[in-house]
Amino acid sequence: MTIKVGIFGSGLVSMHYITGLYRLREGTLKPYGVPFADFKLPYNFTDEEVVTVYDVDEDKVGHELREVIKRNINVDVPIPDSIPQLKIKKGILGGSSAGLDKIFKPIGLDQEIGLEDAIEEITRDLKRSSVDVVLNLISTENVEDVKSVEDLKSRIKEGRLSASQAYAFATYLAAIDSKKPIAFVNFIPSPLANSDVFVELYKEASSVILGDDGATGATPLTADLLEHLKERNRYVRYIVQFNIGGNTDFLALSIPERNLMKEKTKSSIVKDILGYDAPHYIKPTGYIKEIGDRKFVSMDIEWITFNGLIDELIVNMRINDSPALAGLAVDAVRISKALLDKGERGTVYEFNAFFMKNPGPKHMPNISRIRAYYNLLEYLKKREILMN
Amino acid sequence: MTIKVGIFGSGLVSMHYITGLYRLREGTLKPYGVPFADFKLPYNFTDEEVVTVYDVDEDKVGHELREVIKRNINVDVPIPDSIPQLKIKKGILGGSSAGLDKIFKPIGLDQEIGLEDAIEEITRDLKRSSVDVVLNLISTENVEDVKSVEDLKSRIKEGRLSASQAYAFATYLAAIDSKKPIAFVNFIPSPLANSDVFVELYKEASSVILGDDGATGATPLTADLLEHLKERNRYVRYIVQFNIGGNTDFLALSIPERNLMKEKTKSSIVKDILGYDAPHYIKPTGYIKEIGDRKFVSMDIEWITFNGLIDELIVNMRINDSPALAGLAVDAVRISKALLDKGERGTVYEFNAFFMKNPGPKHMPNISRIRAYYNLLEYLKKREILMN
Amino acid sequence: MTIKVGIFGSGLVSMHYITGLYRLREGTLKPYGVPFADFKLPYNFTDEEVVTVYDVDEDKVGHELREVIKRNINVDVPIPDSIPQLKIKKGILGGSSAGLDKIFKPIGLDQEIGLEDAIEEITRDLKRSSVDVVLNLISTENVEDVKSVEDLKSRIKEGRLSASQAYAFATYLAAIDSKKPIAFVNFIPSPLANSDVFVELYKEASSVILGDDGATGATPLTADLLEHLKERNRYVRYIVQFNIGGNTDFLALSIPERNLMKEKTKSSIVKDILGYDAPHYIKPTGYIKEIGDRKFVSMDIEWITFNGLIDELIVNMRINDSPALAGLAVDAVRISKALLDKGERGTVYEFNAFFMKNPGPKHMPNISRIRAYYNLLEYLKKREILMN
Amino acid sequence: MTIKVGIFGSGLVSMHYITGLYRLREGTLKPYGVPFADFKLPYNFTDEEVVTVYDVDEDKVGHELREVIKRNINVDVPIPDSIPQLKIKKGILGGSSAGLDKIFKPIGLDQEIGLEDAIEEITRDLKRSSVDVVLNLISTENVEDVKSVEDLKSRIKEGRLSASQAYAFATYLAAIDSKKPIAFVNFIPSPLANSDVFVELYKEASSVILGDDGATGATPLTADLLEHLKERNRYVRYIVQFNIGGNTDFLALSIPERNLMKEKTKSSIVKDILGYDAPHYIKPTGYIKEIGDRKFVSMDIEWITFNGLIDELIVNMRINDSPALAGLAVDAVRISKALLDKGERGTVYEFNAFFMKNPGPKHMPNISRIRAYYNLLEYLKKREILMN
Repeated sequence: MTIKVGIFGSGLVSMHYITGLYRLREGTLKPYGVPFADFKLPYNFTDEEVVTVYDVDEDKVGHELREVIKRNINVDVPIPDSIPQLKIKKGILGGSSAGLDKIFKPIGLDQEIGLEDAIEEITRDLKRSSVDVVLNLISTENVEDVKSVEDLKSRIKEGRLSASQAYAFATYLAAIDSKKPIAFVNFIPSPLANSDVFVELYKEASSVILGDDGATGATPLTADLLEHLKERNRYVRYIVQFNIGGNTDFLALSIPERNLMKEKTKSSIVKDILGYDAPHYIKPTGYIKEIGDRKFVSMDIEWITFNGLIDELIVNMRINDSPALAGLAVDAVRISKALLDKGERGTVYEFNAFFMKNPGPKHMPNISRIRAYYNLLEYLKKREILMN
Repeated sequence: MTIKVGIFGSGLVSMHYITGLYRLREGTLKPYGVPFADFKLPYNFTDEEVVTVYDVDEDKVGHELREVIKRNINVDVPIPDSIPQLKIKKGILGGSSAGLDKIFKPIGLDQEIGLEDAIEEITRDLKRSSVDVVLNLISTENVEDVKSVEDLKSRIKEGRLSASQAYAFATYLAAIDSKKPIAFVNFIPSPLANSDVFVELYKEASSVILGDDGATGATPLTADLLEHLKERNRYVRYIVQFNIGGNTDFLALSIPERNLMKEKTKSSIVKDILGYDAPHYIKPTGYIKEIGDRKFVSMDIEWITFNGLIDELIVNMRINDSPALAGLAVDAVRISKALLDKGERGTVYEFNAFFMKNPGPKHMPNISRIRAYYNLLEYLKKREILMN
Repeated sequence: MTIKVGIFGSGLVSMHYITGLYRLREGTLKPYGVPFADFKLPYNFTDEEVVTVYDVDEDKVGHELREVIKRNINVDVPIPDSIPQLKIKKGILGGSSAGLDKIFKPIGLDQEIGLEDAIEEITRDLKRSSVDVVLNLISTENVEDVKSVEDLKSRIKEGRLSASQAYAFATYLAAIDSKKPIAFVNFIPSPLANSDVFVELYKEASSVILGDDGATGATPLTADLLEHLKERNRYVRYIVQFNIGGNTDFLALSIPERNLMKEKTKSSIVKDILGYDAPHYIKPTGYIKEIGDRKFVSMDIEWITFNGLIDELIVNMRINDSPALAGLAVDAVRISKALLDKGERGTVYEFNAFFMKNPGPKHMPNISRIRAYYNLLEYLKKREILMN
Repeated sequence: MTIKVGIFGSGLVSMHYITGLYRLREGTLKPYGVPFADFKLPYNFTDEEVVTVYDVDEDKVGHELREVIKRNINVDVPIPDSIPQLKIKKGILGGSSAGLDKIFKPIGLDQEIGLEDAIEEITRDLKRSSVDVVLNLISTENVEDVKSVEDLKSRIKEGRLSASQAYAFATYLAAIDSKKPIAFVNFIPSPLANSDVFVELYKEASSVILGDDGATGATPLTADLLEHLKERNRYVRYIVQFNIGGNTDFLALSIPERNLMKEKTKSSIVKDILGYDAPHYIKPTGYIKEIGDRKFVSMDIEWITFNGLIDELIVNMRINDSPALAGLAVDAVRISKALLDKGERGTVYEFNAFFMKNPGPKHMPNISRIRAYYNLLEYLKKREILMN
């Protein structure tokens, strides 16, 4: 019972997912950081298999996947020989290229043959690879939701779609054409599970689109800290959360329009959980290459406790950014495949509320991670996906 | 619908509870730090009324309650005139006096008239005051659970009972004699809700004994942080938690046998929540008078994340120790009265799991605070105590 | 032996300087935060007397100084009655107004009568008040150094001078006209002690211009931490320093061109002290009103220690921003007056190196504060200003 | 121009010194963490050569040095092949064995042949090896200073001397016998450079005894932070400094009488630098094996700033404990040899004030590290040891 996985983007998260997955399959890695590793689910993570990978970095496209990982992963982890022999394929740049040229030399299929044909080409490849689940792990992009299917189609014609939207549409087409449900898991901030249009399209294709923005790093912890304060009715005076890192994502976020996108999904938790919009400064703050992927996070929260007195909480963290998300991805893949098997369509809030910073569908609230976790367990039990 | 409250101990928590309560009644304080302030419960916190207070500090016994508060509360909060005109009564020292003389001049009713008569005297006073709820807020004591009712009685004869045990027994006698249920809320580490003997006695008296050890400060937060890590299957390498403060409780804890008691209730969360006994150093670490009641907490946690890499979380806090517990006490009183009204007997795990560090009855696990919170909400709804 | 002090700007630093000074004069405040309080100097700080104050905030200009302080100082300190009865005078806006209108309603003398006449008017007032020392405490401004006296004069004509430059020039004119040396102490980042032109003008006027940018808060501490690492030959991998506060200065710094000015003086310490330009992110990061004047600073430094291993230092601070500088100002005033008495002219590096973030004259290095402190002591002894 | 080095103790510091030294000699390590690496001194660190090593751990005595290092160094550093082929010799246990048996199986030469003969044996070996410098790097021991040479000799007879004292005496005898000056560098808290008796003996032997207690980790940083505050006349309300680690030194310090010794040298800095004894809690706090050699330090300092307001500084560190001291040792060896060459005798305060936590001779103050550093530079220049 193999799950065939396609991946858009071969950045650090992607590389950690692939490396970790094949170490797990080899039995040389303990599944720490994989949330449901100790639970009995219909699929084991060793059932996952990477079948196709896309990127738009000239230094990666056309190169052997394992070589690219060896060259780029910036920490000391063993790269297993069992990683499949795949060449990274040329993906779509779309309207998302702004500023990317500061990071690498971007090349896109759409630049060569136009967006419409590029989408068709990706669709063909996804069908050929018989993917069950695709992971969207490209760089954070600035993107505007589509208003309707017509809007989407006219934007394709005009080449004004973001890369994520183009990938999500290509995946939808592959599901329709092959009459085979596919799960699209969107781990970046672009509104896809939060897009009414895309959710409808995936329903139509008997598929699911899950997202948006993988919940790792400081934001889920902040959510749980706020829940902790809320439950004691402590009044939050303000919240500060600084983030600085040295991976490409932080570099991309130093491009102002990309940062904006992130700030939005990060800040929504405050009001959603506390019930009031406590003054806050929550955003990726800077980039220093030498910090690498193990980002530094600093938080300061003050609140009013009983009798009007003031408490303070300061949190400092060093978090391996990409592995955290990669670990979630391992479970996201096998659970989303199980959801497809059980006939889920459109999007699944219970899944998103735990796995994502901005859980779709649109207008659904962020809840603390701990609540989302138990809600998800219950949901998986009810759907007979969780078996212990 | 008044709730008559008796208090054992007039230390900082007691003083903050009384001051804050009467500010709430006057409408000059917002109920921050009172967990269920925004919920509809059978009793409002303005229904609570302090009717009797005991202590064993020579500088307090026989003195006007309000004067004692004015003289001793070490922060800048207004002391309302509406605090009832009560003289602090002489309480029981029992076997708990070890080291107390380093902190103040201890005097006990039992020293004068023997433990047996002292208990009888307290019983009489509790009946006279028609208390509904008593709060145990005395200094942390070193105490051994009683083995049986016989053991308890022979220990009374020999004067070998701790102050808390003596108070709990006096409260039980008052409930039996007056045929009126009383709730005993034990906010210190002594095993009372964790004592099979005491839980049985309270069942017999149609009363409840709730405890043990009020869950405030660093421990509940640690519980929620560990739950957060557990849910992501991150493997905790170690946990360090230092605490230092300048209130009498920290001074008392610098007496080794008292510290031991605290360490036990603080450490049990690790295995209960993680499922394995991660290496840890969790204990009150020191006393500096100038730090006052706003203690300093420092934590360091390392864990293994996906792909075998190591993350680190450092937490520093400044917490007003006593108000945090006083805020909980406000809700504990009105909820425990509601539990009595609904016919609860013995002890109530759902209550204890949220409010206490070491929730009784014996051998019941510690769970993360966030889980305990939602369990309690559900329980209160089922018992028709929570009405929204 | 009175020292007559004029002040440009009546923001928080100014208010803390005045309030603290008159509390010191009354004997109701201990001189904590005044560096040389325990040393014997030619002047006592009780010799200082505020004689004239300027501002450009419509809510302050024309109002009684003491009332403005009462209304605006945002912490609980007693405002002494002995603060002189002065009305705040209308100052110069110059080319420094960009963005100020987001903070308050700015009005400037130069807007009414032109820059040239406004400077003349200030000059007259400084002479009339017989000022010995003036403190420049206006909001951080974006400013370009003047190239020559001619450039300065033509800029005055065109109204293109910054407020600080205009004040410094008015002070120079007052010194020339009255043949009385005046010390201009520049506590903001504008290059005045770092301006060859201004230093020359002050020499000509037998006066001193000291600056630039008062060294308080995180930067001096960072300097001493870097010196500490340097002396052990630890190789700094990177330095992160975040700052967030709620006073007008942080609000002003959220205006990008003002921030830039600050970033420059803050970052220069890295190379000056370490000898290499370690990767760094050091800048005021944000504004949250509720944080008030007690800013939050977070730093993260990694270095390579012996045998190639990596250490890490994380610093978190809560610093009362304005009082820190106000305390320095108390000593800066009496020392700069003593420097004038001893015949110093132009600028004094030894003074600047301790008191300032960007010590003039131009191209002089930043050294660690601890070195600068002992150098200053030695210098003051040599000049017979320090007498114990 | 070789410097022959003998080492007492083959714990982590010793192993890092040897490993790092031979990596430096091979040119495969940059001299980070070696304070004076960039200065021109009479000896290069590549002149240092380890000629004899002692220990009392049964698992080490008689084993090949390089094998012991490979087996015990708990971090990932390359072990160079050039480490000399030496067998670790059996050392002296003396009166210092209390509690050591909790850590390893201790065996001592003195247990076999008595203390007097053991000292003689060590003396013979030191002469045979022609040592120039010996490093004392044994576990922290509880020790009482000797009162006189007679006292020392009678204690030898009775076997009541600590290991450090026995080693220091053996070294003295070797210097006397061979008429060759030797430098004894004491990096542990035992009072040797602070012992009038030992300083006199070393004078007599034309040798130097330097110490006590190598200044690394949190204490030198605390010293510089306090100096920083002192120079601004900020009034320190209290200082908290927690330390927890997983190396043998922390394990040894969990034995109460050993901890006491450490607390003394760590706390003396407060009064020495501030001029008043600010309330403080400064001591090694605990042991968790999993933390390893990279200890966790947490500090909290509050002070009163100008206008009576309160600031707070929180420091968290992860420090590789043993390499820090090993890096100092590299320079201590070549500088102490240069001191011998220049004819220094007894002890050298200028050296000790920078390198040691408790600088001898007795009753000399602790000064901030930054001051001590510049004093040492000046001293070395004056003595023509520093040549740039």
